[in-house]
Amino acid sequence: MRKIAIIGAGNVGIAAAKALLESPDMELCGFIRRGGETVPDFEKIPVEKNIFDLPEKPDGAIITVPSRFVEPIEEKLLEAGVFTVDCFDIHEKLPEMRKRLNVSAEKGNVSCVVGAGWDPGLDSVIRTLMSAAFPKGKIHTNFGPGMSMGHSAAAKSIDGVLDAVSITSPLGKGKHARKIYVLPEENADKQAVEHAILSDGYFEHDQCSVEFVKDISQFFNTKHGVFIENIFENQKMNFSMEIDNPTLTGNILVSAMRAAFLQKPGAYLIPEIPPCNLLYGNAENLV
Amino acid sequence: MRKIAIIGAGNVGIAAAKALLESPDMELCGFIRRGGETVPDFEKIPVEKNIFDLPEKPDGAIITVPSRFVEPIEEKLLEAGVFTVDCFDIHEKLPEMRKRLNVSAEKGNVSCVVGAGWDPGLDSVIRTLMSAAFPKGKIHTNFGPGMSMGHSAAAKSIDGVLDAVSITSPLGKGKHARKIYVLPEENADKQAVEHAILSDGYFEHDQCSVEFVKDISQFFNTKHGVFIENIFENQKMNFSMEIDNPTLTGNILVSAMRAAFLQKPGAYLIPEIPPCNLLYGNAENLV
Repeated sequence: MRKIAIIGAGNVGIAAAKALLESPDMELCGFIRRGGETVPDFEKIPVEKNIFDLPEKPDGAIITVPSRFVEPIEEKLLEAGVFTVDCFDIHEKLPEMRKRLNVSAEKGNVSCVVGAGWDPGLDSVIRTLMSAAFPKGKIHTNFGPGMSMGHSAAAKSIDGVLDAVSITSPLGKGKHARKIYVLPEENADKQAVEHAILSDGYFEHDQCSVEFVKDISQFFNTKHGVFIENIFENQKMNFSMEIDNPTLTGNILVSAMRAAFLQKPGAYLIPEIPPCNLLYGNAENLV
Repeated sequence: MRKIAIIGAGNVGIAAAKALLESPDMELCGFIRRGGETVPDFEKIPVEKNIFDLPEKPDGAIITVPSRFVEPIEEKLLEAGVFTVDCFDIHEKLPEMRKRLNVSAEKGNVSCVVGAGWDPGLDSVIRTLMSAAFPKGKIHTNFGPGMSMGHSAAAKSIDGVLDAVSITSPLGKGKHARKIYVLPEENADKQAVEHAILSDGYFEHDQCSVEFVKDISQFFNTKHGVFIENIFENQKMNFSMEIDNPTLTGNILVSAMRAAFLQKPGAYLIPEIPPCNLLYGNAENLV
């Protein structure tokens, strides 16, 4: 039984904890939180500010903090010999981050899976398979409508923003619009906030608009979806999901954690991992 | 540049040959046919009855003969040090065949990928991913409507059958009906033919009916499709395809051939292979 710690106890951390409870081969040995406070519904699980203060040394750690804080945490864990997974979601920065973490993983003689959420993550494997099936097909990924956790967290981290919800809507052929609802801090410079959001790397490539609101809770919804299509001449394949965003992310993180223990030391993207290693037990019955 | 031979030159063999022509890392070095006759549209490609009579020794072989003839051919090739792939399609026999071919592959110090068609094959990986995403979800695979190449070949191989086309129709929740159109040999005992088909392992588990016809060509159609669904509480994911059956099978065989060269010696099911190895070049742009 592998002992797994979860770093962060937001929506995704809690979902990963629930997924661990259903996993016969892994057990949750603790949460790591900045404040060190107990996690609701998980009162018996130890909580520490530092992973090495937990009663038992974890074999693995599931990192669920916002993407921008992931790498230094993951680097330290790997070098200390802890297997890790993360759901880092800035697509274009992922290959370089993987290369740097590969050095840390080899140093610690352990493995990690980076970008193990649903996109990047599950969807990346779907696109890889679609590309193998129709090498000359044209693949489009259409998200939503739904709340993007990564984009909401990115908007929330901007100065002057108390809370934010970013809704993704598909425009077709892989293009998206984003509406960012912002609860500003009192006395925030709204024009400066709007400019900072629209010029942020998370938002600058899409058609975005910002709306300041007084009640953000009405926009919060964890349902999301995707429609991936690959069209080649008169043939086509589609993959679509209507899912609860943190639940799916938690499940994939836990599956990737399982697979990480079977890889030779190094850092991996999820399409580099044999899919059967994501599952508990024997994959042969899925053939 | 890897040299690849194709065993069999039916619909799937021809489709695999076309897929090889589009592959920058592999080249078609010959066809193997019982009769040794030239393959239409591939007049410049050497044809032999025995693979070791080809002008160049192949690095790999793509086996496209009917499933029942695959294993002895594959065993011999592996032991002679040739990497192989096949699209063996009898789901329940695949795990045991893999185990036996694993011995041959280790003996020859090469690898093979077994069951590398679309189902088993591509669909097996989709089901594996779906199961990792919703471990408690209920997965159903619904085929068709379309002509099953494996079932048609199975019916055709029965005594008294000159030609046959087996059409799969989905009944929902993974159940199927099969209609088998049969062009009988002159003086065939139709009752015996019908009994032999309906009690064959390919047909005995489904709702099947046999119809004897005088013109089989009108039923021949290479279009096919699948709809795989995984439902968990109020969440769902779907994968669907509308494809040309031999084209897709040929593309997957060629992708699996590429991946086989990167595996350590042994026999693999396609969910055991890192998906990125199916692609030519770098998978990072698909993240």
